[in-house]
Amino acid sequence: MASSILRRFIPRKTTWMYGQRMMSSTIDVSVDEQTGIALMKMKRKPVNSLNLEFLQDIRNTIVTLEQNKKCKGLILTSDVPKIFSAGIDILEMYQPNEERLHNFWRALQDMWLQLYMTPLATIAAINGHSPAGGCLISISCDYRIMAPNYTIGLNETLLGIVAPFWFKDAMCNTVGYRETEIALALGKLYSTDEALQKGLVDEVVTSEQIMEAAQRKMLEYVKIPNMARAMSKQLMRQETADKLCSTQDSDVQNFVNFCLQDKVQQSLGFYLEQLKKRKSK
Amino acid sequence: MASSILRRFIPRKTTWMYGQRMMSSTIDVSVDEQTGIALMKMKRKPVNSLNLEFLQDIRNTIVTLEQNKKCKGLILTSDVPKIFSAGIDILEMYQPNEERLHNFWRALQDMWLQLYMTPLATIAAINGHSPAGGCLISISCDYRIMAPNYTIGLNETLLGIVAPFWFKDAMCNTVGYRETEIALALGKLYSTDEALQKGLVDEVVTSEQIMEAAQRKMLEYVKIPNMARAMSKQLMRQETADKLCSTQDSDVQNFVNFCLQDKVQQSLGFYLEQLKKRKSK
Amino acid sequence: MASSILRRFIPRKTTWMYGQRMMSSTIDVSVDEQTGIALMKMKRKPVNSLNLEFLQDIRNTIVTLEQNKKCKGLILTSDVPKIFSAGIDILEMYQPNEERLHNFWRALQDMWLQLYMTPLATIAAINGHSPAGGCLISISCDYRIMAPNYTIGLNETLLGIVAPFWFKDAMCNTVGYRETEIALALGKLYSTDEALQKGLVDEVVTSEQIMEAAQRKMLEYVKIPNMARAMSKQLMRQETADKLCSTQDSDVQNFVNFCLQDKVQQSLGFYLEQLKKRKSK
Repeated sequence: MASSILRRFIPRKTTWMYGQRMMSSTIDVSVDEQTGIALMKMKRKPVNSLNLEFLQDIRNTIVTLEQNKKCKGLILTSDVPKIFSAGIDILEMYQPNEERLHNFWRALQDMWLQLYMTPLATIAAINGHSPAGGCLISISCDYRIMAPNYTIGLNETLLGIVAPFWFKDAMCNTVGYRETEIALALGKLYSTDEALQKGLVDEVVTSEQIMEAAQRKMLEYVKIPNMARAMSKQLMRQETADKLCSTQDSDVQNFVNFCLQDKVQQSLGFYLEQLKKRKSK
Repeated sequence: MASSILRRFIPRKTTWMYGQRMMSSTIDVSVDEQTGIALMKMKRKPVNSLNLEFLQDIRNTIVTLEQNKKCKGLILTSDVPKIFSAGIDILEMYQPNEERLHNFWRALQDMWLQLYMTPLATIAAINGHSPAGGCLISISCDYRIMAPNYTIGLNETLLGIVAPFWFKDAMCNTVGYRETEIALALGKLYSTDEALQKGLVDEVVTSEQIMEAAQRKMLEYVKIPNMARAMSKQLMRQETADKLCSTQDSDVQNFVNFCLQDKVQQSLGFYLEQLKKRKSK
Repeated sequence: MASSILRRFIPRKTTWMYGQRMMSSTIDVSVDEQTGIALMKMKRKPVNSLNLEFLQDIRNTIVTLEQNKKCKGLILTSDVPKIFSAGIDILEMYQPNEERLHNFWRALQDMWLQLYMTPLATIAAINGHSPAGGCLISISCDYRIMAPNYTIGLNETLLGIVAPFWFKDAMCNTVGYRETEIALALGKLYSTDEALQKGLVDEVVTSEQIMEAAQRKMLEYVKIPNMARAMSKQLMRQETADKLCSTQDSDVQNFVNFCLQDKVQQSLGFYLEQLKKRKSK
């Protein structure tokens, strides 16, 4: 089952690899073959919001790295100032083309399954705000290091949206059931300090030191026998991943139906209007 | 499934509503239509013990409030000094009429399902001791505030009784598996301070300030978009509720069989004898 | 189901009971009929490693104690200096007889099921290092007291091995999902202090005081009504035990297949070589 999750990937043609460096318009990846550690920088300006193509790029990058036998660990970070990722690109949901809407949600599912179940050790170096989908990416890594004075959380409820069950499952697996219940009910955005206290992140260091801290921690992970570490991860996470795998189609359909409601389109319109006003100030 | 749980209610005829005020002999309810916050005071003297009719009244109250479109949140508290609720009325279990015993346990299940799954935001203002069934009511709310120098816990084991699996599930969802294991094995009653430390309650304030603190917290909950908050709660709790829903009949039968054992009747008799002696002192 | 687990025992003929004292070559057991507390000392020199016969002895001891109506609680400790138990005897896995390999893993499963589900209250007095299988025995008790300056943990990953799912389940039930994920990924051995902080043990006292502390805590457990305490334990643990019960055969087969791989035999050989060198220094 795990291998079927990990293998059913068909690559898009937008990620190239030259020697140890892969490039796409939204992602910059380099692999240190000495240490076996890859670094992936998200650079979809201005806020690394997750649209269809960006989600596919993230997934493709992970798959390509999995196929590189010298690569054992992956550090995810942002190349955009003050934002790790702002989460789902709301424009994908507003006045959508229905087929693209399907593909978008499927791409989000597939990116998550690839990241959550990857045999690579994964560390999020959260060097900026990380709401909603940004939080999902963070909690799907094996370890989280966060810089001070940012926020992180599944704040969907605040926008009148309900987090999908698999966001909830990944959150429960990180901070436990009770804290997840509070987090979802209130759409809570945790400050860096609160996130550390509740176990939503594992370590806090300054933005200047975050890459060094991530490298140091990753060396702990990659020195562990590779196959055993990957199988331990599968042992822990397979059940959670299988819950989505067995209902991917209906999960897509639920999302599409939700988006196409008049009410939802109206609130998205209102929300986007507000965003524009804020920017123009 | 959720809606079937929430809708299959048939009201008893003992709760009346005049304007914003509902009355029964055991419950006093008022709704502030400005804030959308309802306040329910339990007043079944002397200790708010849960008998058949009281359980039905609690459930009816919740159902009625759910049907009031202006009501978004419910604060539960006690109007009886120093006791939030003493839990199940032992007299329902001692020398019972078998049919009433059935109905009693079913009413406990139904009250719990209604409270645990209600789309209303719920806060327990625990202004007195809260053992056994009192603890169940508390942990089924979304948030708990407790006054100092009281006790709370699932202490059934101490009485030679085993908590039903759904009490255990609600406890696990509040304090986690390991603490629940200790709590049940020892029938542990937590002091207010211990309860805070273990996450069994979320906040401690003096009895004088508890209603104000509950109102303040509830304002946080009711300002969240209503439907998204209710659906997040359902997302978290449906699986736990479904476990009982799918076995309600056998759970009733187990309870009835347990109660009707000679041994159990003897210990209940002994326990009630002791209670009488303590009172006459 | 529980009773089937607890009853399907067929005793080996190596444990004798004279009055209140049972003897085998690897275990010393005494029962204090006054308090109902049994003390089991593991003494398979040099490190209480778990081979087929030792596992059977542990299980037989528990079964015999369960049949003693005066016995309510069991304290497990080590009679070997500085080691509680070093875990599985690697010699069972290296160049194995296949039938014995089958029986060995089955004995480990059966010992675990007996210990994890025993109606006796169980306390581990961890007076030495407790890696891998030693940690499993510890986390399968109801309560853990540990002496300072030792280590405990499921460190299988470090050896290139993956902990079986039921080790993982018992660990999750002790320290929660997130800590288990870290523990398994890194094969983490916790110092006594870390173990206390993460909830992997419940109490720390000096080696000199550990037996007294275990006795004191056990008195709390055995004064609770016996049947209710045992049934509460079953209520908590049955689901976890059933996961193994329903797949015992395939779990044995997985283990046997794993062991018989050339790669695994090579690393075991290498590991045993290193052990020898360390000893000869």
